Amino acid sequence: MARAVNENDLLAKIMRAFPATGKRVLGLALDDDVAVVSPRSGVETILTCDWMLEGSHFLRDRHPADAVGWKSLARAVSDIAATGGVARYFLLSLAIPEGLTGTWLQEFLQGLRRAASTMHCKLAGGDTTRRDDILIGVTVIGEIAEKLAIRRSGAKPGDKLFVTGTLGEAELGFKMLRKQRGLARPKNAALRGHLYPEPRLAVGQWLAKKRLASAMMDLSDGLSSDLPRLCAASEVGARITAEHLPISPLTPPKDALSLALHGGDDYELLFAVRPETARKIPREYRGISLTQIGEITAEKKVLVERTGKVSLLATSGWDPFRK
Amino acid sequence: MARAVNENDLLAKIMRAFPATGKRVLGLALDDDVAVVSPRSGVETILTCDWMLEGSHFLRDRHPADAVGWKSLARAVSDIAATGGVARYFLLSLAIPEGLTGTWLQEFLQGLRRAASTMHCKLAGGDTTRRDDILIGVTVIGEIAEKLAIRRSGAKPGDKLFVTGTLGEAELGFKMLRKQRGLARPKNAALRGHLYPEPRLAVGQWLAKKRLASAMMDLSDGLSSDLPRLCAASEVGARITAEHLPISPLTPPKDALSLALHGGDDYELLFAVRPETARKIPREYRGISLTQIGEITAEKKVLVERTGKVSLLATSGWDPFRK
Repeated sequence: MARAVNENDLLAKIMRAFPATGKRVLGLALDDDVAVVSPRSGVETILTCDWMLEGSHFLRDRHPADAVGWKSLARAVSDIAATGGVARYFLLSLAIPEGLTGTWLQEFLQGLRRAASTMHCKLAGGDTTRRDDILIGVTVIGEIAEKLAIRRSGAKPGDKLFVTGTLGEAELGFKMLRKQRGLARPKNAALRGHLYPEPRLAVGQWLAKKRLASAMMDLSDGLSSDLPRLCAASEVGARITAEHLPISPLTPPKDALSLALHGGDDYELLFAVRPETARKIPREYRGISLTQIGEITAEKKVLVERTGKVSLLATSGWDPFRK
Repeated sequence: MARAVNENDLLAKIMRAFPATGKRVLGLALDDDVAVVSPRSGVETILTCDWMLEGSHFLRDRHPADAVGWKSLARAVSDIAATGGVARYFLLSLAIPEGLTGTWLQEFLQGLRRAASTMHCKLAGGDTTRRDDILIGVTVIGEIAEKLAIRRSGAKPGDKLFVTGTLGEAELGFKMLRKQRGLARPKNAALRGHLYPEPRLAVGQWLAKKRLASAMMDLSDGLSSDLPRLCAASEVGARITAEHLPISPLTPPKDALSLALHGGDDYELLFAVRPETARKIPREYRGISLTQIGEITAEKKVLVERTGKVSLLATSGWDPFRK
């Protein structure tokens, strides 16, 4: 029988799931309204936040609660990875129905805790309330040595464009998951990218430390949505080659290019490298492939070359305001 | 005719409302996924986040969009005020229906900008998406000199308990607003406390700088909910005197005590002061009254004395998980 909970009970459950968050350990406490943390000297603070909303970003009857927890944090940490920084703390804003404060909450917190541990990011605080829908907002506070943060705005004409990993798998997983019935099985390889994206923290930190990237962002909405944003911020254009895209081997050939160009949620890194530095980029770094897909141009258009023909890259990745 | 918007358009609108947020000014940008800020030396960072959800925290047909904007930030800044810190940056997570991206959004941003300016807190970034309900999450990043932050957990038996301002007005305003039809008129004095709460930043900063308070928190859910939290964090009890509560002159006498004890949303500060220091607390500070309402006890109960009779203070302030 579900016992009626109050906000204090709910906070207690969250605190038990993150036992290192006690005020004695860190000077932080979830049962306070604020967290107080000490920035290290010589660093800049990186701030980012991301929604994870039922119906918009996940489906209660398809996405395991554990994956919702993992991905809530991974989405935001990925933005930190794209600066080259480390993730230090996160704040969790959680609104859930009272009926989910049992098993669902426990599994959600398990996934969140696993992500926090993998990404070395500690829970620092949050806010909870009751709501019919599950609403999650995560704010991540990261750090990077002064002046090393990589932004979207530093690309110059002639820079070479790279991406990490492979593209299209997360969108494929989401399509599969919508077709099936019931909760997704997290062991399914084609679903892993969609359910448990892995922010490219190590690659990002290496690129920043070695000052190899002139501009960088993560691919959350799809290459055709995100590349134009990097170009706009840098006041440049780009030209990519379809045949050079690192297609996920899991995507079916007939959909592979479309998934790689427009599929969202891959959380790979897109980065630009000065032409004279491009030879310093290896084919892979710590097991993650690094693939040159094109270059930055002075003309402010985003073009894709396919079988020798060049066309404008139409944006059709994920935009919540487009239906 | 409402034009279809996309996420980039929406971000552009928000950036126009906060013209100082350009990357050239601050090294921040809302059109990036992250903000990079430099902590000052010798300070600690204070982190807090608060929900502001349609249906839970405000009603679309009663609360002016301008007040929703103001209060979204004020709620979170109030938590910073309760540590004695200054508010520096905030992140805005916003989910709204496409039909509200015109006038409603403009008014919301006006209220938010006015609050940001009044509270000296700059927009640093955020995340937007489309949603049928209006969902708002605000994260505030504050600062305070090392070791000066006032927490909930420092109260000791014998400490005197104080509150700022007057109590009960915000709850009264909310009751009035629910009874009436249509949008609230912000000029109505009885509604001002509910619609436009003013975080007690100056009082909080003065208490911290002078090291006058042993424990502090803001009254967001009502004295009967929040005082037990301060007591629990400090592992103490408290005894307050009903006749000493600073009743809002706007509350009707028959409801005044109940509103002052249980009414939420006042965002006044509740703080404890060592007995030998209590005489240093003036009757008001910069026009805000400071009233002694009771004291901290060793016995872990929260008691209220009324006309000489002492009883347990029953918690009946706002808890989203209690109906």
